[in-house]
Amino acid sequence: MIYDVLVEVRLRAGIADPAGATIERALPSLGYDGVAAVTVGKTVRFTIEARDEVDAKIRSEELCVSFLTNPVIEDATLSVTPVDGVSGLDA
Amino acid sequence: MIYDVLVEVRLRAGIADPAGATIERALPSLGYDGVAAVTVGKTVRFTIEARDEVDAKIRSEELCVSFLTNPVIEDATLSVTPVDGVSGLDA
Repeated sequence: MIYDVLVEVRLRAGIADPAGATIERALPSLGYDGVAAVTVGKTVRFTIEARDEVDAKIRSEELCVSFLTNPVIEDATLSVTPVDGVSGLDA
Repeated sequence: MIYDVLVEVRLRAGIADPAGATIERALPSLGYDGVAAVTVGKTVRFTIEARDEVDAKIRSEELCVSFLTNPVIEDATLSVTPVDGVSGLDA
């Protein structure tokens, strides 16, 4: 079965986020006030072929830890959904 | 009132995604089979001070279109939630 996987990668609390800080510093002079706590992260989406949802989750987590994120400075949130459930294919 | 905003930025369909393609190409030789359709996007999180949720949404959308995304090649999905609702502050 095929599953859609969405990985959201965020810097861990306390890790410097220069991209977010730069955006935050620039906004007031561009006319945007009241914006704070800007952080920038990344997302990786893919499909994975797996026996079942648990298998899909385990292999996606492995993938995250080994290649998609740096666990020392980043946290990842995974969501796994069957492709059927999302694309609305006839069951 | 303060609102938490999450912006998810994805490349539009049909726009080349070299980062995703590189990950996809590398995975089989790293022992991960069955992974396809890899795309890489970014997220921006921030808090915004606004009169109400509609105001927060309108100003965040403006921000997205003007500075956070390139509307020619990117699509953005916005979600706005009151900080109270998320952080569980005493009401």
